[in-house]
Amino acid sequence: MGRIVDRPVTVAVLAQALGANVVGDGATLIHSVSSLERAEANDLAFFADPKQRARAAQSRAAVLIVREADTDINAATKIVHPAPHAAFAKALDVLFPAPAVTAGISPQAHVDATAIIAPTARIEPFATVGAGARIGAGTVVHSHASVGAESVLGEHCTLHSGAHVYHRVMIGDRAIIHSGAIIGADGFGFQPSPAGWQKVAQVGGVVIGNDVEIGANTSIDRGAIDDTVIGNGVKIDNLVQIAHNCRIGDHTAIAGCAGLAGSTVVGSRCMIGGAAMIVGHLSICDDVIISGGTLVTTTIDQPGRYTGVFPYTDHRTWTKIAAGIRRSGK
Amino acid sequence: MGRIVDRPVTVAVLAQALGANVVGDGATLIHSVSSLERAEANDLAFFADPKQRARAAQSRAAVLIVREADTDINAATKIVHPAPHAAFAKALDVLFPAPAVTAGISPQAHVDATAIIAPTARIEPFATVGAGARIGAGTVVHSHASVGAESVLGEHCTLHSGAHVYHRVMIGDRAIIHSGAIIGADGFGFQPSPAGWQKVAQVGGVVIGNDVEIGANTSIDRGAIDDTVIGNGVKIDNLVQIAHNCRIGDHTAIAGCAGLAGSTVVGSRCMIGGAAMIVGHLSICDDVIISGGTLVTTTIDQPGRYTGVFPYTDHRTWTKIAAGIRRSGK
Amino acid sequence: MGRIVDRPVTVAVLAQALGANVVGDGATLIHSVSSLERAEANDLAFFADPKQRARAAQSRAAVLIVREADTDINAATKIVHPAPHAAFAKALDVLFPAPAVTAGISPQAHVDATAIIAPTARIEPFATVGAGARIGAGTVVHSHASVGAESVLGEHCTLHSGAHVYHRVMIGDRAIIHSGAIIGADGFGFQPSPAGWQKVAQVGGVVIGNDVEIGANTSIDRGAIDDTVIGNGVKIDNLVQIAHNCRIGDHTAIAGCAGLAGSTVVGSRCMIGGAAMIVGHLSICDDVIISGGTLVTTTIDQPGRYTGVFPYTDHRTWTKIAAGIRRSGK
Repeated sequence: MGRIVDRPVTVAVLAQALGANVVGDGATLIHSVSSLERAEANDLAFFADPKQRARAAQSRAAVLIVREADTDINAATKIVHPAPHAAFAKALDVLFPAPAVTAGISPQAHVDATAIIAPTARIEPFATVGAGARIGAGTVVHSHASVGAESVLGEHCTLHSGAHVYHRVMIGDRAIIHSGAIIGADGFGFQPSPAGWQKVAQVGGVVIGNDVEIGANTSIDRGAIDDTVIGNGVKIDNLVQIAHNCRIGDHTAIAGCAGLAGSTVVGSRCMIGGAAMIVGHLSICDDVIISGGTLVTTTIDQPGRYTGVFPYTDHRTWTKIAAGIRRSGK
Repeated sequence: MGRIVDRPVTVAVLAQALGANVVGDGATLIHSVSSLERAEANDLAFFADPKQRARAAQSRAAVLIVREADTDINAATKIVHPAPHAAFAKALDVLFPAPAVTAGISPQAHVDATAIIAPTARIEPFATVGAGARIGAGTVVHSHASVGAESVLGEHCTLHSGAHVYHRVMIGDRAIIHSGAIIGADGFGFQPSPAGWQKVAQVGGVVIGNDVEIGANTSIDRGAIDDTVIGNGVKIDNLVQIAHNCRIGDHTAIAGCAGLAGSTVVGSRCMIGGAAMIVGHLSICDDVIISGGTLVTTTIDQPGRYTGVFPYTDHRTWTKIAAGIRRSGK
Repeated sequence: MGRIVDRPVTVAVLAQALGANVVGDGATLIHSVSSLERAEANDLAFFADPKQRARAAQSRAAVLIVREADTDINAATKIVHPAPHAAFAKALDVLFPAPAVTAGISPQAHVDATAIIAPTARIEPFATVGAGARIGAGTVVHSHASVGAESVLGEHCTLHSGAHVYHRVMIGDRAIIHSGAIIGADGFGFQPSPAGWQKVAQVGGVVIGNDVEIGANTSIDRGAIDDTVIGNGVKIDNLVQIAHNCRIGDHTAIAGCAGLAGSTVVGSRCMIGGAAMIVGHLSICDDVIISGGTLVTTTIDQPGRYTGVFPYTDHRTWTKIAAGIRRSGK
């Protein structure tokens, strides 16, 4: 059985919420949701990819969200929608509504007397909010999270447990910042000297737009002099490194383990694949896709997809290939 | 001098615990342990690799664990065992017994009234345990760690300081979860829309088997609909990314900085090298070795070792090689 | 406008602190600092790279730090110094002095009765210090940071929020350890057995020299038997993995997302680029530069720069190149 919903909903009610039609019994109660592959009786699932038609026909799901062209599929009840995946995503919001935020500052939290906390915000035990910081309406600061001095969290943000926001970091509305994310640590700025590396004070801040999500254990450094800037609607996965002075355009998505070196400028609507790396002081224009694992070493000024990945093979074949590559340098 | 043991033990007592024989004085007290290379008088060390025989002969260790074939080596006292490395590992458990867990819930912890904490568990200061969570016998939740609502930690687990377990994460017995590890954050799931990326609720959970170790700052995301699943005996190093819906088979080991994209299925007894990356929606069969730094882009259905790494050279040679590679695409 | 200084300073006072000359009005007050690119009236900026001369001539900065050769540049007031970048870095220290540390142990901290805290140290709310640990003069342990039993932090260190130091870790003076950094977690040490991987106790420690900076979410594992050792003046960026038993020489710098596998020895004054990886049990001599994204698979005993990066191209070209590479293994 899939994930049980908080409160069962009829197919008819759900279809209405999705602006979709029903083929079958609208009175059917949806008790749980599942992937097509693992669905069992009582489950809601969806099916959009024509390649999965055979699998869908065998699915034991009680209710399927399908395209018009697939209403003949073998399922007790169908919800018909032109974009089943998107409809399913919306259905999840209906079936698993976000729990209401219980406002208030825990007596076990540590909030500086000069911080301004909206009355509808929630500050959990062992959270800290520094001097002059501001926390917006409906925002939740979970346990073990910290908000540094003079930093701002907008409205309806979630700062998960153990996320740390340094001082003077501005974050817009509806941010979701996962556990272990670190926003505003010092950039990696040093000057060589006869006595070794001398630290260069990192006096810039971080400015993050609205509707940004930042994954677990991702780090976004503060600017050296100017700010590090993350645009609206940017989505950043886990374990991503954004170095000082980077500027990322609106609606760009960055997958896990990727890294942007210092002062990299990335345009809007880009997609940076997992473990891709961008060398510092480069510009990437709008609408660029960087394949996972690619190291970008020069500025990109044309939209498109860019790749640089060593094709993997069985190990023995690789040793031959690698020997040939080494020879080619002689 | 090496690491001093908590309480000195005689060679005879240790050998008995290891099921090993003694050559030399069984009454010798072992005061400390060391690597072969750095051993000094009073140290216990081991020697298994025949290539290290010369080094072993020069070692100043008081006691050496050696194979039968090496009992002639120059050391005051030898403990003879067919697998010196494994015997040394066991000796460490004898010489450095895990400290007894002092049970109890710190008055400085925050435990929800509906959580169930085994009487022999220990909850340290500034740890949090959410509503309906369950903590098993002998399990330690260190300071600054959090366990979300309805999550379960089995028996004799260790959740180190600053590890965060989200809601509805099931963890088996004897798990060791290091500081900064994040289990159950939202997967990176978004739908494109005219207004930008729309978040897809991540309603699955995480299910982790018995005897799993998870390294520092590793993140394991919860499933989108179904669960993310980690098998029994899986060992995961530091800074590893496991995306939503991954399923990892029993006894697979994953080295540091590796990453698995969403819905990757990895078999049992695989070894994923450091910084290796596996693209999403692939299957890796049992008994596969992925070399460090390799990006796997297709399903693997044959056991064996797979590699895709650019051979490094001095930088000047590389520029010639790279130019040749670029030309090969024209 | 750039970053506003805490207290305005005249050009004459600043120039004296820098040992520099003034061309223009020494009575000009510096109100803020900025990059050359974004500078506006009232800002201090600097200009060192001859390629930026055109940009500098257009800058609206009130005060520029320039080389002797550039005193003719179009700016109201110039501070003349042979090394403008270094002078600017020093100017930041003058203009943004580190706030004085208010000493004391927060009543909301948890400090073991046997820990020794210098009277001038500061322990913030929700920080923990374990049994027998020692915290030096002027050192700050921020909220949610932990210092394990018998660990030592030297003088004038900063342990940022959510950094975790395990037991028996020795850290020198003036360390800066950013949020989410984990020092002393167990190394990834297991022995194969018929029942699966058997954990090898990690009984070594970590020894860190003076003047070390460690970035956000970086992990440095404790040694298996001997210690993991980080030299003086080493600078480590974010999300870096240092495995057990590594030894890193003085003044080496390691950029973000890099990784060192177990028992790697790195010399002094090396520079390890971002996302570079070094396979275990290798030695890298002094004065080596590893390019970003390079995987080092053999010992390096000659100073110089080493590289192994697949040159990226547009995706279509890459498919041709990759096919050719695969063919070369047949």
